[in-house]
Amino acid sequence: MPRPIRAVISQQAMSHNLSVIRQYLDNARQAPVTAADGAQPAPMGATHIWAVIKANAYGHGLETAIGGFAQADGLAMLDLQETERAREAGWQGPLLMLEGFFETRDLPLLQKNRVVSTIHHPEQIRMLQASTLAGPLDVFLKINTGMNRLGFAPQQFDQAHQDLLALQQQGKVGRIGFMTHFADADGAQGAVDVPATVFRDTVGQCQGSISLCNSAAVLRYPQLAVSAADNWVRPGICLYGSSPFANTTGEEFGLRQTMTLQARLLSIQQVKQGQSVGYGSTYTATRDMRIGVVACGYADGYPRSAPSGTPAWVNGVATELAGRVSMDMLTVDLDPIPDAAVGDWVTLWGNNGPHIDEVAAAAGTIAYELLCALAQRVPVHVQYSGESVEK
Amino acid sequence: MPRPIRAVISQQAMSHNLSVIRQYLDNARQAPVTAADGAQPAPMGATHIWAVIKANAYGHGLETAIGGFAQADGLAMLDLQETERAREAGWQGPLLMLEGFFETRDLPLLQKNRVVSTIHHPEQIRMLQASTLAGPLDVFLKINTGMNRLGFAPQQFDQAHQDLLALQQQGKVGRIGFMTHFADADGAQGAVDVPATVFRDTVGQCQGSISLCNSAAVLRYPQLAVSAADNWVRPGICLYGSSPFANTTGEEFGLRQTMTLQARLLSIQQVKQGQSVGYGSTYTATRDMRIGVVACGYADGYPRSAPSGTPAWVNGVATELAGRVSMDMLTVDLDPIPDAAVGDWVTLWGNNGPHIDEVAAAAGTIAYELLCALAQRVPVHVQYSGESVEK
Repeated sequence: MPRPIRAVISQQAMSHNLSVIRQYLDNARQAPVTAADGAQPAPMGATHIWAVIKANAYGHGLETAIGGFAQADGLAMLDLQETERAREAGWQGPLLMLEGFFETRDLPLLQKNRVVSTIHHPEQIRMLQASTLAGPLDVFLKINTGMNRLGFAPQQFDQAHQDLLALQQQGKVGRIGFMTHFADADGAQGAVDVPATVFRDTVGQCQGSISLCNSAAVLRYPQLAVSAADNWVRPGICLYGSSPFANTTGEEFGLRQTMTLQARLLSIQQVKQGQSVGYGSTYTATRDMRIGVVACGYADGYPRSAPSGTPAWVNGVATELAGRVSMDMLTVDLDPIPDAAVGDWVTLWGNNGPHIDEVAAAAGTIAYELLCALAQRVPVHVQYSGESVEK
Repeated sequence: MPRPIRAVISQQAMSHNLSVIRQYLDNARQAPVTAADGAQPAPMGATHIWAVIKANAYGHGLETAIGGFAQADGLAMLDLQETERAREAGWQGPLLMLEGFFETRDLPLLQKNRVVSTIHHPEQIRMLQASTLAGPLDVFLKINTGMNRLGFAPQQFDQAHQDLLALQQQGKVGRIGFMTHFADADGAQGAVDVPATVFRDTVGQCQGSISLCNSAAVLRYPQLAVSAADNWVRPGICLYGSSPFANTTGEEFGLRQTMTLQARLLSIQQVKQGQSVGYGSTYTATRDMRIGVVACGYADGYPRSAPSGTPAWVNGVATELAGRVSMDMLTVDLDPIPDAAVGDWVTLWGNNGPHIDEVAAAAGTIAYELLCALAQRVPVHVQYSGESVEK
């Protein structure tokens, strides 16, 4: 009865990906320190994983992801309502608000749900100072090590830390950790060296947990994730099976795709050589051919920027887009699938289809954007361990 | 308590835009026939407006749009559940399923809700033939006049029409109308001439309502909308205030924006000349400057493809993006707004901000995609006539 489109979400793939990341960390812990300059400290203490489930768990559904990442050490998100939902879903472990709180009136709920708050701006410290908190709030003090997005500049750090220590004395702040975020962990090799050094120099001898690594840093610089007595990494995209690096797919890291997007053929057109297909007539048939019209468009979250040639699979056979993506439909070359018929499933990305990282690359974007863009109107089928979805 | 972001939807702008389109049609009806070849038939009969509200009314919310387009002659959508919601919302007028039904089991609900169904493929006729419909279903027979997406090829038309007439005799089909869709109504001047001629030649002397014009065709070729005894136009994007044409905005047609996207500044960074901002360090400060971090990212539906330089307004003052759009944040140059402070509203598009058509153009896409992409996590404030939204 709904439009013939669906997203199949695999909780098993989520839990697999989490274990892959855990393995990366374990391997790093056992690896010898190889940095030529000796700047990488030897492994010490424990590494914990915040599974990042912001943005509706990258489009997968918050509750589904909480189940999939049940073995994570903590969950990281952005919205206070998400922390409420996590507690309602039965999650007992730590919760982290990645941008902290936005208003003073957020504080009671943070406290009620035992949420750790990022502190990235003096305004947040002022709110804490002006508040009448009933008990201590655990915080991560965020340092801007060059990304120039969130965080205190190194020269602001001492003041911010002193302020938090004073709040600690007053019982408003509990444990104080330290965090930063890398702008280029997926970029040129070594691009994290300067920010990591800035971070170490800024934190200096201050005691507390630290948190530096996003997906790219965990995969490429795992030594950064196993230093310090208590290290919390923040993988996001890799937990959903995608690579944070250009020109690769998550498969190369042993990750499994967590979302498969499929829609049925709702029409087939016989197109003659020289005829055009779709808006703007951007595709012209170079031969007589069959065009399949698929019930998926950019209003479902499929990227309009995906050009002709973007991979799609019909009945498990690889083919490609032919013509511009419409709001509710897209068109594919059916010549490689001569027996394709109206009603057949087309896989736009995911299992038994093109890798989402390939589709994203073809569309000039990243899998993060495609996953998050999955529209509310797409019915979601959650696949629990071992379960299969009806043909 | 939610993240400091909101979409403000104006029902008044919707109803204004509908009246603008009505005016275009009235003007066309009164205009002399000017086509040099005399191919445009003189105005006759009535023109009706299907207000297109598919894709959650282009991101505006179905029920909100039903209120905004209360003066439309009919509502057009894609999903059977939307027709159910339209009836529940009290809509008594005609409803059109733009892709028709997908399965035989859809037919009873179509009938219950008195929905007009597009018939674009022989498979749908077979379903009707095999069905046991209790009463007649009104249909629009869709003709593929060159877009090669949905519809019967001209050479398939006679058979399809005969089949529908036979079904009419059996009481399964009621009124039969004829429709097509243009691939290039927004393209080169005159690009609809061939498909419009194919349509006329194919339909020939068959009696029934016709439906040809999308937004672009209504605005540019309104004569096509006032021919025939009973003509139904299908405006979509223009009802939401945007232009269907490149390098223009809806304002040039007297249309008002129906969605305003705003988010607050959640941090401000002092950046030194030569420092970079955001992922990939794609923006480098050419001077010491202030960067504002805005609580809106691509997971809210703002396009990641929007480059540095894309317009955004802070406190009513024009400025531009500086650095790559993140999942939950974006960064703007605050130098034109020296008194901007954390908590101030930034308008990403809409009233008292850049036109959504300008933002779409900067991002290499169209307003349709931006509107539809508005994420569920963005709180929506519906503005009824004359109402204002809190600062």
